[in-house]
Amino acid sequence: MESDEANTTNRPAEVDRFPNRDHAIVAQRVQRLFLHLNPPPEFSDAVALVPCAGRAKIDVNTDQLSKYMRGKYRDVQQRVYDYFNSRPELQTPIEISKDEHRELCMRQLMGLVREAGIKPFRYVVEDPAQYFAILEAVGSVDMSLGIKMGVQYSLWGGSVLNLGTKKHRDKYFEGIDNMEYPGCFAMTELHHGSNVQGIQTVATFDPVKDEFIIDTPNDGAIKWWIGNAAVHGKFATVFAKLILPNDIKGASDMGVHAFIVPIRDMKTHIALPGVEIHDCGHKVGLNGVDNGALRFHSVRIPRDNLLNRFGDVSRDGKYTSSLPSINKRFAATLGELVGGRVGLAYSSVGVLKIAVIIAVRYSLLRQQFGPPKQPEISILDYQSQQHKLMPMLASTYAFHFATLHLVNIYSEMKKTHDEQLVGDVHALSAGLKAYVTSYTAKSLSICREACGGHGYAAVNRFGSLRNDHDIFQTFEGDNTVLLQQVAGYLLKQYQEKFRGGTLTVTWNYLRDSMNSYLSQPNPVTARWEGEDHLRDPKFQLDAFRYRTSRLLHSVAVRLRKHSKTLGSFGAWNRCLNHLLTLAESHIESVVLAKFIDAVRSCPDASSRAALKLVCDLYALDRIWNDIGTYRNVDYVAPNKAKAIHKLTEYLSFQVKNVAKELVDAFDLPDYVTRAPIGMQAAEEAYSQYTQYAGF
Amino acid sequence: MESDEANTTNRPAEVDRFPNRDHAIVAQRVQRLFLHLNPPPEFSDAVALVPCAGRAKIDVNTDQLSKYMRGKYRDVQQRVYDYFNSRPELQTPIEISKDEHRELCMRQLMGLVREAGIKPFRYVVEDPAQYFAILEAVGSVDMSLGIKMGVQYSLWGGSVLNLGTKKHRDKYFEGIDNMEYPGCFAMTELHHGSNVQGIQTVATFDPVKDEFIIDTPNDGAIKWWIGNAAVHGKFATVFAKLILPNDIKGASDMGVHAFIVPIRDMKTHIALPGVEIHDCGHKVGLNGVDNGALRFHSVRIPRDNLLNRFGDVSRDGKYTSSLPSINKRFAATLGELVGGRVGLAYSSVGVLKIAVIIAVRYSLLRQQFGPPKQPEISILDYQSQQHKLMPMLASTYAFHFATLHLVNIYSEMKKTHDEQLVGDVHALSAGLKAYVTSYTAKSLSICREACGGHGYAAVNRFGSLRNDHDIFQTFEGDNTVLLQQVAGYLLKQYQEKFRGGTLTVTWNYLRDSMNSYLSQPNPVTARWEGEDHLRDPKFQLDAFRYRTSRLLHSVAVRLRKHSKTLGSFGAWNRCLNHLLTLAESHIESVVLAKFIDAVRSCPDASSRAALKLVCDLYALDRIWNDIGTYRNVDYVAPNKAKAIHKLTEYLSFQVKNVAKELVDAFDLPDYVTRAPIGMQAAEEAYSQYTQYAGF
Repeated sequence: MESDEANTTNRPAEVDRFPNRDHAIVAQRVQRLFLHLNPPPEFSDAVALVPCAGRAKIDVNTDQLSKYMRGKYRDVQQRVYDYFNSRPELQTPIEISKDEHRELCMRQLMGLVREAGIKPFRYVVEDPAQYFAILEAVGSVDMSLGIKMGVQYSLWGGSVLNLGTKKHRDKYFEGIDNMEYPGCFAMTELHHGSNVQGIQTVATFDPVKDEFIIDTPNDGAIKWWIGNAAVHGKFATVFAKLILPNDIKGASDMGVHAFIVPIRDMKTHIALPGVEIHDCGHKVGLNGVDNGALRFHSVRIPRDNLLNRFGDVSRDGKYTSSLPSINKRFAATLGELVGGRVGLAYSSVGVLKIAVIIAVRYSLLRQQFGPPKQPEISILDYQSQQHKLMPMLASTYAFHFATLHLVNIYSEMKKTHDEQLVGDVHALSAGLKAYVTSYTAKSLSICREACGGHGYAAVNRFGSLRNDHDIFQTFEGDNTVLLQQVAGYLLKQYQEKFRGGTLTVTWNYLRDSMNSYLSQPNPVTARWEGEDHLRDPKFQLDAFRYRTSRLLHSVAVRLRKHSKTLGSFGAWNRCLNHLLTLAESHIESVVLAKFIDAVRSCPDASSRAALKLVCDLYALDRIWNDIGTYRNVDYVAPNKAKAIHKLTEYLSFQVKNVAKELVDAFDLPDYVTRAPIGMQAAEEAYSQYTQYAGF
Repeated sequence: MESDEANTTNRPAEVDRFPNRDHAIVAQRVQRLFLHLNPPPEFSDAVALVPCAGRAKIDVNTDQLSKYMRGKYRDVQQRVYDYFNSRPELQTPIEISKDEHRELCMRQLMGLVREAGIKPFRYVVEDPAQYFAILEAVGSVDMSLGIKMGVQYSLWGGSVLNLGTKKHRDKYFEGIDNMEYPGCFAMTELHHGSNVQGIQTVATFDPVKDEFIIDTPNDGAIKWWIGNAAVHGKFATVFAKLILPNDIKGASDMGVHAFIVPIRDMKTHIALPGVEIHDCGHKVGLNGVDNGALRFHSVRIPRDNLLNRFGDVSRDGKYTSSLPSINKRFAATLGELVGGRVGLAYSSVGVLKIAVIIAVRYSLLRQQFGPPKQPEISILDYQSQQHKLMPMLASTYAFHFATLHLVNIYSEMKKTHDEQLVGDVHALSAGLKAYVTSYTAKSLSICREACGGHGYAAVNRFGSLRNDHDIFQTFEGDNTVLLQQVAGYLLKQYQEKFRGGTLTVTWNYLRDSMNSYLSQPNPVTARWEGEDHLRDPKFQLDAFRYRTSRLLHSVAVRLRKHSKTLGSFGAWNRCLNHLLTLAESHIESVVLAKFIDAVRSCPDASSRAALKLVCDLYALDRIWNDIGTYRNVDYVAPNKAKAIHKLTEYLSFQVKNVAKELVDAFDLPDYVTRAPIGMQAAEEAYSQYTQYAGF
């Protein structure tokens, strides 16, 4: 092991992202050059390790594919759809004022819980996969409703369940479950979002009255963006620095803790004394959620209101905790909130599905221009439209399987509390949340643009989907911050590897093959350009993982170098773009691996062939998008780069041929997608649309 | 010349985008290899052809820079700003219903014309630069107002002036100018947007009554998205196929012509008989504009209402035109509408400026995390935030100069009607409109995300800017279609070149140096990596132009090849992505050239240094974004790629150091940018923001 580590330390600058090729590799290059001149014939065709779909048009059985895609909680989703479909008065109109939207959203949530009998709270801990399925379905009815439900059950409810103890569960479960206790999650402050440890609200223990006193010391500490606060909330879980009076020093800051603070009178609904509540006002989207701002003026709460799972204060003001330090307790506290990210990644794919369904169906319907004296052709017949939408359709499938995997390991973790799984879920939820929500946000704009003028009609949904989804990139962890967490975990794993330790599940590939990935690219395979080779999952995965491993190794070297002069914070910042690329690359590796697994596990042959086609497009499009990196390290020779590009365009064309079946397989009925231009029966689309305008 | 052409025809596949390197270049490669081993020292430092800013922090005099940036029509813009600033009741509130917004927008326009005395119509033909300046200023008050003004004066008014003759001007000028004749531009139909020649509305001449009869033959021909139609319009310029009764064949279709059709009664404002008007309803943005749908049921209009500049019908039903064919007349008709694209490109930069100002100022203000035990740092101090915003700031400057250039040549064209200039303005307006609006659309989302939660508050403007601007990518020509026009013009120029003909102004570089750009990259300069070399405008321009020339040549070869089997339509579609890349590459070349000119022409040394810094970032960031293409043809060696990447990050850091001054130089007062988090005086930003929420 030590020799390994020494090796790393001494690795010259050539392992950096864009290596100064040094003299040592010249021999290889000369060899490559001559290979180039006289390629042995067997290399040109490559080895077909796995049979691929070939060039015939695939016959997709939508029912079979749909059955494979559909999660085991489809029934409860259907109940959600049916309920809202049967209550037109609960459907959100195209135009609605903020205040009306908030009231409607509350009625929708009440209807769901009290009338449709769908009570999500019990699933938050017991069956999270079911909870996320409900969340996704509710979000496709109106994303404001999804978020309002998430605030109530994941955030406010989840904080009580996960950060509190039995006394809290006994006291609050019923009221949270049946919506008698609508509540808030008051973490973010005006001046602090990502840096939660920097929040300034204080909770000072008063041993005389056995109470905590909650205070907002300055305007920067006003709790901001608090969902349910502006109108409906009765309680808030308030995150504040716990201050204990201390004979010697005056007071001790015990770090961030969570406290249940009643904010409105249970009967009159008037704000309680000392609780100042304002409305954060109109937002870009999600205006059905009543975000508010809270300022506390010496608000007193009983000692029991400390959510005391990870740290407690006794009657005489002594602090006890099973965890040794402020940082460990902080990590444990925030760690319990990871479920929110899982839900966002999962729901983001749900949004992406709706948008892709609408854009693909309209692109098949819409005709514009054509060959001289012939009928106009569908706009999806244009290469440019395929380029915009087919890799996006492939990514939607890829993310579907990846987030399903995340939900499964999260559920497993909730059952077993296995420590490796905890780390894995942590990093993967951070990474997938960031990666998927950024991708969906960009895609929503592309879909609108790809649907031209009719995509700009509010009734066709791209506007509200984009505006509502936009903040997915920010809340529950800013994407740029989350990706850094992923990079941090990867670096930790990297160090473990060289210490001979074990690695968590998702990045087995780092353990298995770091060395091979770090060797010089093979000049022979770098030139292989046969379709069988390019569509071989081994080539694809190797390429993704090579990139990740190389980025990881090179950033580790750079960080070490810069730390000496800039300190660790400065070195991190100097390498920040590199670290973000590394994190994205890792997430892409995981997504591809899960997609390949899903293709292999598909029992129906025709569905498997369709998924293989889509998976190949996903993989090759990603490689092509980053072709500069592959070229810079000669992992891919120019002829291979060209072949990848050509094949990507060809696969886009092939996927286009089954695009209708592929979006139908998402199995979302018209009353969920709702856009007239995206109706399943193409012949009704325009007439539905003109009827909407009053014709 | 013929030998040139023969040369091209015989050029082997290696000139394609990703060349199969052939044996002929092996000698070069071996030479490169050995150069790599022993680089002569003089190559490492490169030749400093132009002195560059160096590594010291630049001292920017905002006033001087602002003076240079400010157009000569700043005064009229200031009058617009002042007028609306003095009329709080005319300012658009954060939340407003569609119907109220439409009425307010109309009041704003009336106020501008009748109270502030700013009458844009006279400038549409006489002084377009002044017109565009007003349009930009009005758009920053409320983009709906900008578009409503554009509908009235550029589209409805512009069609009367440009497609009509003196009789139309005499009859309508005054009413259009003073808003007594609010009007529409009824071109787009439900089934036809981009393909204007495919529209189906008909205007049949009735020689008995000396009238045209306007008819909507089917639902697909309903005029759709017609601004001013749903509520305010009295007239519409209707585009329809002119049908002339013909003794022999029954009837002749003379192609698309424009007709003035009164749609509402001048007194009662009720829809006239046979004119069916519906509301297109709520849109993603621009809800202050009343877009409607029009169906015509045998609506009769006098023969005089044909806008007859390019084709006329006599009393006895004979057709006359100075232009020989339907296609020529159609081209002339659409050609007159090019001003709309100029205005959109220009206004899009205005939107980008507002967004960049807000995002940069907030990123300087906002602090989050920091080195251990030290104060938190500004988020713009993070490399990732610089990466998001600094190339965007550089692009804003680049687009400012490019669109100013476009406005100038458009004005020149309107005066001289010089034919070369017409072609140039046509392609450049199409290309810049497409390129700039796509860039701005993406940037608005990046800015929102970069500003985190507070970027999601509606009051901070990213939402409305994005929603309003979104359709800039579609109207006045779908961006994907417009880029194809650019590619088409380039191919035409390419063929001209080989026939020895002249080229229009903007692509002189193609004439001057197509041959040198098409030669093999120089293996020596491909390795130069010195800062002076990379910041040399010659290197930058050469790289941009090399790429364009290569893409142009290779797509011409591919088109010729595929035409044989697929026909010209099929070949075009097979090469479509390639053609779009070519068009974008050309536009980038023009933008860079204009930016370099603007740097050189700047009289103030400190401003010139700042602009040079920004221009270098613009150029190198673009090269880096497309590094795969450069690597694939060995235009840039790996060491140079790495140097470009490092320098781009370093220049982003340097631009960050003067980012405040650079956004201040856009010279937009707080009451125009309006976002609390983007206030010029940073110390007031948070307090303005909390006051807005009621604190």
